[in-house]
Amino acid sequence: MVNFEYYAPTQVVFGKDTELQTGKLVKEYGASKVLVHYGGSSAKKSGLLDRVCASLGEAGIPYVTLGGVVPNPRLSLVREGIALCKKEGVDFLLAVGGGSVIDSAKAIGYGLFNDCDPWLFFDRQTQAKGCTPLGAVLTIAAAGSEMSNSCVITNEDGWLKRGYSTNYARCRFAVLNPELTCTLPAYQTASGCVDIMMHSMERFFSHAKGTELTDGICESLIRTVMKQAKVLRDDPSNYDARADVMWASSLSHNGLTGCGTTGDWATHQIEHELGGMFDVAHGAGLAAVWGSWARYVYQEEPEKFAQFAVNVLDIPAGKKSAEDLAMEGICAMEDYFRSIHMPTSLTELGISPTDAQIEDMAQKCMHFGKRTIGGFKVLKAEDVVKIYHMAK
Amino acid sequence: MVNFEYYAPTQVVFGKDTELQTGKLVKEYGASKVLVHYGGSSAKKSGLLDRVCASLGEAGIPYVTLGGVVPNPRLSLVREGIALCKKEGVDFLLAVGGGSVIDSAKAIGYGLFNDCDPWLFFDRQTQAKGCTPLGAVLTIAAAGSEMSNSCVITNEDGWLKRGYSTNYARCRFAVLNPELTCTLPAYQTASGCVDIMMHSMERFFSHAKGTELTDGICESLIRTVMKQAKVLRDDPSNYDARADVMWASSLSHNGLTGCGTTGDWATHQIEHELGGMFDVAHGAGLAAVWGSWARYVYQEEPEKFAQFAVNVLDIPAGKKSAEDLAMEGICAMEDYFRSIHMPTSLTELGISPTDAQIEDMAQKCMHFGKRTIGGFKVLKAEDVVKIYHMAK
Repeated sequence: MVNFEYYAPTQVVFGKDTELQTGKLVKEYGASKVLVHYGGSSAKKSGLLDRVCASLGEAGIPYVTLGGVVPNPRLSLVREGIALCKKEGVDFLLAVGGGSVIDSAKAIGYGLFNDCDPWLFFDRQTQAKGCTPLGAVLTIAAAGSEMSNSCVITNEDGWLKRGYSTNYARCRFAVLNPELTCTLPAYQTASGCVDIMMHSMERFFSHAKGTELTDGICESLIRTVMKQAKVLRDDPSNYDARADVMWASSLSHNGLTGCGTTGDWATHQIEHELGGMFDVAHGAGLAAVWGSWARYVYQEEPEKFAQFAVNVLDIPAGKKSAEDLAMEGICAMEDYFRSIHMPTSLTELGISPTDAQIEDMAQKCMHFGKRTIGGFKVLKAEDVVKIYHMAK
Repeated sequence: MVNFEYYAPTQVVFGKDTELQTGKLVKEYGASKVLVHYGGSSAKKSGLLDRVCASLGEAGIPYVTLGGVVPNPRLSLVREGIALCKKEGVDFLLAVGGGSVIDSAKAIGYGLFNDCDPWLFFDRQTQAKGCTPLGAVLTIAAAGSEMSNSCVITNEDGWLKRGYSTNYARCRFAVLNPELTCTLPAYQTASGCVDIMMHSMERFFSHAKGTELTDGICESLIRTVMKQAKVLRDDPSNYDARADVMWASSLSHNGLTGCGTTGDWATHQIEHELGGMFDVAHGAGLAAVWGSWARYVYQEEPEKFAQFAVNVLDIPAGKKSAEDLAMEGICAMEDYFRSIHMPTSLTELGISPTDAQIEDMAQKCMHFGKRTIGGFKVLKAEDVVKIYHMAK
């Protein structure tokens, strides 16, 4: 087991009707004026925004609102949010939505606290010294941003999608009411479930040894999400399945499933460029490329993929070789993705990047030669080009 | 799944040589003068105390020391600690030891912050408004106090052992170096492992439904600890086993394995009275009474005990009834306890309470008629008397 730090200070308030506690929570965390940040019209139509704002009103907390966050949240709206917060004297950010809304709020917080353009951080030009405090009322179980240190923003100038992670940006609290996710479209639900699984799978595929406790927790979480995603495919308003998936979204990305491992994260990086260029659903993009990544890298340590096949996918080990078990597991995972109507290729994802676009994405993925990606197998631009082609 | 709150803000710094970071951590948390609180001579002899104090010195943080904490930590030393802290102007408490030392530090923190005798809180006469900030350098994996909200103190006046739990008393940071536990005696190691398992088992035995994710994590954690306790029985300095057990000690009592369940906790309460009267090792005491508790309560919902038998103890379900599986599981768990040289009766624990002592413990357990215990089956004094007799 490698040395690690684990820090997940977010206060989670989980269950039915918990959004009614938002005002009380914001007050406890010392807010004097709040930005209520949200996405499209669904938060308005469902009445959630009204309930949250009423809760702020009851707690005597003034607020302004800013909607319009889109999937793969954009830098231009972040900049607009920063200007609004400065004008209005906002000192607490409340994200009402999914990972995109939370990430947009985090980026606003970086800009507001450090009084600069937040792209400087995403572009690695400088480091943030803090972040305006924020909380979340979650409406989509997927990204895990409600407990994670991560934040991913897309700069429309060049369609660069970049992540920046610090403990400053961890939510003070997260209100998780699974009922709020019961009306999500099937595709978005399944895509979210893939994202959740992948946050643990990215941590699982590591050469670190002596990680039995973490692996066990990780495998158990992935199995449960796989099962509940199927339940939700057939019964979208099943509360307990929605609750397991929502709680798994937080646990899968708060660090728990990677304690003592080294992690990989190449699949996420490869998908980030797809999301930056084509605006695809993140989880669906992950499903579309994972199998190709896995086939490209599994020989670095087939035993780890064999463990995944046996413990997560219930494939009988018998007397099979680690290589055979690994490949059987990769195929079974792709079969599983198809069973919840997720794509396992770029074509099924609905995109057909040209060779030039693939080259462009691979270069962006490497920050134009500034880095490599992947821990299980270190990948350069030429590797990523091959994986995109395999995934076509 | 029932509504829940999850709040585990402790910054965990895990791995080899991490105690050398103590000074830096204490400084980051704003300490100006520290009480270094510890137990017996082992922390001195091993050189740990010197390393920790040197680290404080390097960070420029002045400190005073107070040793002498014993298992089932006592109110008299807590009071002594409060007086010392007041005299010395201490504003940060550093526990160097196991659960007893951390709990003693928490109780000092309650008294210091609220400027009153801390027994008032344990005796439920009033509520604490805060606690002086504290951190821990852990030397025994067992109690989980390094991430938990709980604190248990024994009042020598009447040998009353009482717990008091608030989020105020959560450690700011916990330094977890598994190497520090490699020299623990076998009995203490095994006893610690039982305590760790029991923190998750107490949460697992609940009538709450829809807890698949939490149950899966809980079962996985217990299985790993059971396996690693056997590894340590035969190979006490196995680092990865020590690491799994140490990390499990924190995860098993930080709330994670009980999210969405209602929990039981009767076994802990029954053992607390044994510990208060006889000064037995806590984990060994739990092992000694658990089987009797389980036989007394399992018929409330044999299916939950059957799930435990199958998922944790690998008992083939076949076509057995839930009742049969439940009983098979209880027997298998007791066999397991014996395999790591833990007692499964009061006699094996080395104590023979008289009928009058049993009656006395049962009454204390109910706070003299002020409460009942247990969630899986609600127990009164007469039930607890029967369980003590069954456990003889």
